[in-house]
Amino acid sequence: MPEDSRIPVGVLGATGSVGQRFIRLLDRHPWFRVTAVTASERSEGRPYGEAVSWAQDEAIPPGVAALPVLPTAVGPDVPIVFSALDSSVAGPVETAFAAAGAMVVTNARNHRMDPDVPLLVPEVNSAHLALLEAQAFPPGGGIIANPNCSTIGLVVPLQALHMAFGVRRVNVVTLQAISGAGIPGVSSMAILDNVVPFISGEEDKLETETRKILGKLAGRAIEEAPIEVSAQCTRVPVLDGHLEMVSLELAGRPSAAEVAEVLAGFRGGRWEFELPSAPKRVIHVLDGPDHPQPRLHRDLEGGMAVSVGRIRECPILGIKMAVLSHNTVRGAAGGAILCAEIAVAEGRIDGVGIPGAGSG
Amino acid sequence: MPEDSRIPVGVLGATGSVGQRFIRLLDRHPWFRVTAVTASERSEGRPYGEAVSWAQDEAIPPGVAALPVLPTAVGPDVPIVFSALDSSVAGPVETAFAAAGAMVVTNARNHRMDPDVPLLVPEVNSAHLALLEAQAFPPGGGIIANPNCSTIGLVVPLQALHMAFGVRRVNVVTLQAISGAGIPGVSSMAILDNVVPFISGEEDKLETETRKILGKLAGRAIEEAPIEVSAQCTRVPVLDGHLEMVSLELAGRPSAAEVAEVLAGFRGGRWEFELPSAPKRVIHVLDGPDHPQPRLHRDLEGGMAVSVGRIRECPILGIKMAVLSHNTVRGAAGGAILCAEIAVAEGRIDGVGIPGAGSG
Amino acid sequence: MPEDSRIPVGVLGATGSVGQRFIRLLDRHPWFRVTAVTASERSEGRPYGEAVSWAQDEAIPPGVAALPVLPTAVGPDVPIVFSALDSSVAGPVETAFAAAGAMVVTNARNHRMDPDVPLLVPEVNSAHLALLEAQAFPPGGGIIANPNCSTIGLVVPLQALHMAFGVRRVNVVTLQAISGAGIPGVSSMAILDNVVPFISGEEDKLETETRKILGKLAGRAIEEAPIEVSAQCTRVPVLDGHLEMVSLELAGRPSAAEVAEVLAGFRGGRWEFELPSAPKRVIHVLDGPDHPQPRLHRDLEGGMAVSVGRIRECPILGIKMAVLSHNTVRGAAGGAILCAEIAVAEGRIDGVGIPGAGSG
Amino acid sequence: MPEDSRIPVGVLGATGSVGQRFIRLLDRHPWFRVTAVTASERSEGRPYGEAVSWAQDEAIPPGVAALPVLPTAVGPDVPIVFSALDSSVAGPVETAFAAAGAMVVTNARNHRMDPDVPLLVPEVNSAHLALLEAQAFPPGGGIIANPNCSTIGLVVPLQALHMAFGVRRVNVVTLQAISGAGIPGVSSMAILDNVVPFISGEEDKLETETRKILGKLAGRAIEEAPIEVSAQCTRVPVLDGHLEMVSLELAGRPSAAEVAEVLAGFRGGRWEFELPSAPKRVIHVLDGPDHPQPRLHRDLEGGMAVSVGRIRECPILGIKMAVLSHNTVRGAAGGAILCAEIAVAEGRIDGVGIPGAGSG
Repeated sequence: MPEDSRIPVGVLGATGSVGQRFIRLLDRHPWFRVTAVTASERSEGRPYGEAVSWAQDEAIPPGVAALPVLPTAVGPDVPIVFSALDSSVAGPVETAFAAAGAMVVTNARNHRMDPDVPLLVPEVNSAHLALLEAQAFPPGGGIIANPNCSTIGLVVPLQALHMAFGVRRVNVVTLQAISGAGIPGVSSMAILDNVVPFISGEEDKLETETRKILGKLAGRAIEEAPIEVSAQCTRVPVLDGHLEMVSLELAGRPSAAEVAEVLAGFRGGRWEFELPSAPKRVIHVLDGPDHPQPRLHRDLEGGMAVSVGRIRECPILGIKMAVLSHNTVRGAAGGAILCAEIAVAEGRIDGVGIPGAGSG
Repeated sequence: MPEDSRIPVGVLGATGSVGQRFIRLLDRHPWFRVTAVTASERSEGRPYGEAVSWAQDEAIPPGVAALPVLPTAVGPDVPIVFSALDSSVAGPVETAFAAAGAMVVTNARNHRMDPDVPLLVPEVNSAHLALLEAQAFPPGGGIIANPNCSTIGLVVPLQALHMAFGVRRVNVVTLQAISGAGIPGVSSMAILDNVVPFISGEEDKLETETRKILGKLAGRAIEEAPIEVSAQCTRVPVLDGHLEMVSLELAGRPSAAEVAEVLAGFRGGRWEFELPSAPKRVIHVLDGPDHPQPRLHRDLEGGMAVSVGRIRECPILGIKMAVLSHNTVRGAAGGAILCAEIAVAEGRIDGVGIPGAGSG
Repeated sequence: MPEDSRIPVGVLGATGSVGQRFIRLLDRHPWFRVTAVTASERSEGRPYGEAVSWAQDEAIPPGVAALPVLPTAVGPDVPIVFSALDSSVAGPVETAFAAAGAMVVTNARNHRMDPDVPLLVPEVNSAHLALLEAQAFPPGGGIIANPNCSTIGLVVPLQALHMAFGVRRVNVVTLQAISGAGIPGVSSMAILDNVVPFISGEEDKLETETRKILGKLAGRAIEEAPIEVSAQCTRVPVLDGHLEMVSLELAGRPSAAEVAEVLAGFRGGRWEFELPSAPKRVIHVLDGPDHPQPRLHRDLEGGMAVSVGRIRECPILGIKMAVLSHNTVRGAAGGAILCAEIAVAEGRIDGVGIPGAGSG
Repeated sequence: MPEDSRIPVGVLGATGSVGQRFIRLLDRHPWFRVTAVTASERSEGRPYGEAVSWAQDEAIPPGVAALPVLPTAVGPDVPIVFSALDSSVAGPVETAFAAAGAMVVTNARNHRMDPDVPLLVPEVNSAHLALLEAQAFPPGGGIIANPNCSTIGLVVPLQALHMAFGVRRVNVVTLQAISGAGIPGVSSMAILDNVVPFISGEEDKLETETRKILGKLAGRAIEEAPIEVSAQCTRVPVLDGHLEMVSLELAGRPSAAEVAEVLAGFRGGRWEFELPSAPKRVIHVLDGPDHPQPRLHRDLEGGMAVSVGRIRECPILGIKMAVLSHNTVRGAAGGAILCAEIAVAEGRIDGVGIPGAGSG
């Protein structure tokens, strides 16, 4: 496949932490190539490679390093834009891009709970993509939201168990990595030799987003899942990888062994598509008595898998387990790219198809 | 009070992490003075100051540094010994000391669940000291056990709420400091940029010890409290201070404000005694939205207080909150010293009284 | 001594990291009491206890918590102000306070290299206080500068060796704590599992300040010491305590043992005064083969001592050693308070004497 | 190339930290395949996958996981063995393997300073391989030593500068990662919020190994380079990557720009061979003002490159700079594999050639 047949994409807010991760993950992408990057005004016009404080552990892709930084406003003629904008500005900007005919796949929280916006985890609720039809944008335009990073790790195993046994109540305590707060984000003075048992807005997101994602598509709306979620969120001195200690009440009252079997066998939704960023197995059930651990398991399947361990019975709610996912890959940029892939593969973006999969 | 009127005490296993903490906390003690230290055979006969790899942030008290290290066997003629022995050896050694007429206050787990051994948190269950009468040791001999470090932080607020509202079910996720594992304990390769969601035996201790501590003295036995506890324990890269994220079902269904009021007003048991190591307020209710934090709050009241914050309602069990305590002070050496103090103050040790409080 | 005989002092920039440390260290001060605190405009008028994000490990002193935050401008009628201002604003503000008749003891870098400003480390160059006479301020007014935190730890042992053997060349690699950068300061994403081998402006300060501090008072000016300094500064994931790996060329070519003896015997300058914040021994020579260490030794003598260890011969420059000092106590607030103490004790502040040391 | 044409190799001490790294790096190796693994007696006979506490961030290669663990004694019929043995046992075991006809490439220190053992960094001193001829082992047998991890990072840029300008004196302060001490290695209680300014034996290794590696082959012996080295070694809380702050006296007195140019242009020795593990550029000269940093740059070129930054003039020795290398890849397992590759490529191992490069 010659390079120029790939779909041109833009990254909004490309110099921040999640923006950088988008650039890195898209570098080797078989379907997409980055042709436009935007940032705040003070970077405008400078080459991306100079404007960014690059903090990834691989070098900036040369092609992107040379791109001039654009202002974050409608203009770039690309069919897909990934938004890594801060929520203080993301809302109206993303709407403007969609109104101009672009499919916006966003990591910001602003549109997540909009009734006509799919809050998408492809393995969990790809059917929700149908909501795009309810959006009042011109052909090709639309908004797809990537959920909060701690929500994504949770809903993947929850969906497996919800389909098999019915999830009623979920108690979750998170131990979240500092990269979730961006750069500069958490001050080192706040977190070294310390834990902070609070993350603004996070507990609410876990409770409300989970119900929407696991909800049913009913016509052109989502009927929320009747699941009670109680979250306590903490920040720990870990670079990447959110660990969640979960207790569950399941209608079917399965044993721990039955839960493990269902999780290990989970295959997500419609996997006729070989999506480039999809993990081979979305849930890895680990046997090690002290697994999963952020440093050892966050990079499984390129950071796109979710690990589950310590599955056992709980005297209060029935089942407890530890869940781990990579918050800036699976939980942010990687997850959003997978959302774009499924939208392309399912033909949800007007005029855009899988490169090289010609109509011939 | 002339120095030599203080009660001579011994420290068993004095060179380890908890042993060092005993030495440091006893240095300025108004009632006790350390006259004997024991360690493993290879240290025998050397001055303590040479035998120990001292890792406290103050210098070794000179009087103790000069003491010759004794073998860990009956011999020192002291009425009270503090045991910081490893559980692999603690059981029979402690029994032997008690049989020889010493009151053993131990931090090891071996005798904790013995039916006739008080598992003591003075502010919570000082009445359990009456169990000493059931022990078959000669006058002056006995065993008092200090609970597990993560249990102590939990049972203090639980007791306050149990008395006020009745505790039925407790879900707890702990974020425990590395000092809880001793020295060398946790390898730095295991915990830097990481969390380990498992601590051997810890979850079981939280579940069983809690029921004994909150139980009722019935004759010469403890009737366990009918409380369901479910624990998930993790190790985090923090030096000192165990944080516990707790959800509670209380029979009385109080509001968060009522819970906060009860905790703030808790005064423990019989505080006619001005015990030297007792905190002025055993529970500090903190208002900061992101409090308590290990580094900021572990040293409150010299490390002997328990901090509680983020008290709020929980859609599943009713109430949730964050609890913090210093694991090697309140949860180990400091707690054990307080146990000895109350035993002395209540006249539970044959022939031993408060120094300077003479009958004259 | 009744409380109100103490000298009223102000703290400029009281809500920042160093400002907080001033408040904490001054809380129990026998000579000074804080009666005025200033901060940026958005805090103006609020009680200090509400305006500050307090991050010290002890509670805010109640008396200070209730003080209203003032704007950082001339006004408070106090004879001494401690400046914890950021260097972006400190220069003219400090001059204005001095011009209004206050003695300004500053931790900011702005006036450090002014020819008529003493760059003061009381144990090292108290004679430089005579420069105050060269300052063109009204009676009682003046500026005394506290050196950079990494410089202070270095010049204390350097002065001991300079007096004994003559220092010619100094090569120093620093491993500096994150608290040196203030709050928020260093992002946790930048320093966790990492070292940053650069601190803006720091190497230059070490090289130039050292020559001034060790210089000779010649009339109303300082003649810089002819010492060559080469510095390489790094930031490490440590909360407090700057470690410096030093190599030295000494004119006298002493042995390592002779160096150790001189350092251990160093008594500083004119110690007829019992200054409240002065360490009993300003240099602690440690024998442990792996000492000094930031966590174990930064708090020696309340953080006011400097520790030196691993003194040995160097095949290149002659002597090498490791030096440690507490950067926010000895190297910032504590050092500045000691500067004020010696200025008071030596009668350098017009109309201000040691409280309770009356003329009677 | 069919898999079985690869050269079978063994790993001695395969369950430890460096042993695991060998297994991981050899997994995808085009020339070598692991057919034998040894460990201590208590693992004997168990499958490697069960005997090891695997702590790498990728899964154990399935082929190796199934291998039975052998005792560490002569027996496996492989032409090359990699030794990750502890120095307490490595010496005689390695000699025995060489005497039995195997080429031993070792990471242990025991034989490093033996006069007839090449202390090899392929880009620096491949000519030293000729020493193998001086070894009294049967055909195919021999010992090649990999230098100490902190030495390797240093000698690569030193050799570039030695060839261009002549190195006379080197002052180096290291900031070394915890993985250098193996597993469990450094206790987390020793290093969290701390730096330890001492590593046993390390400074001596840097001083003596450097002179041997940069020495000249003279007949069948090495004439040490007349370079004075002074080292101060510290351990910092970083997982991987040794940072070294270096000052240099060069005979040629070059400018910083000239030094940078020579380093950037360095190509090592005889690069007619395309060795599988060789970095494309062995030295990366970085421009960032705060580069290199362990977390950002340790993985350059798969961890096999050395990064140099902050090259500038030094008022004392002439040039200073910061050097970084990955201590368990470049500095241990990866470096040793590269040593084996060059030995194979240069035909130094009797009867062993590059797989698939047949004579036909």
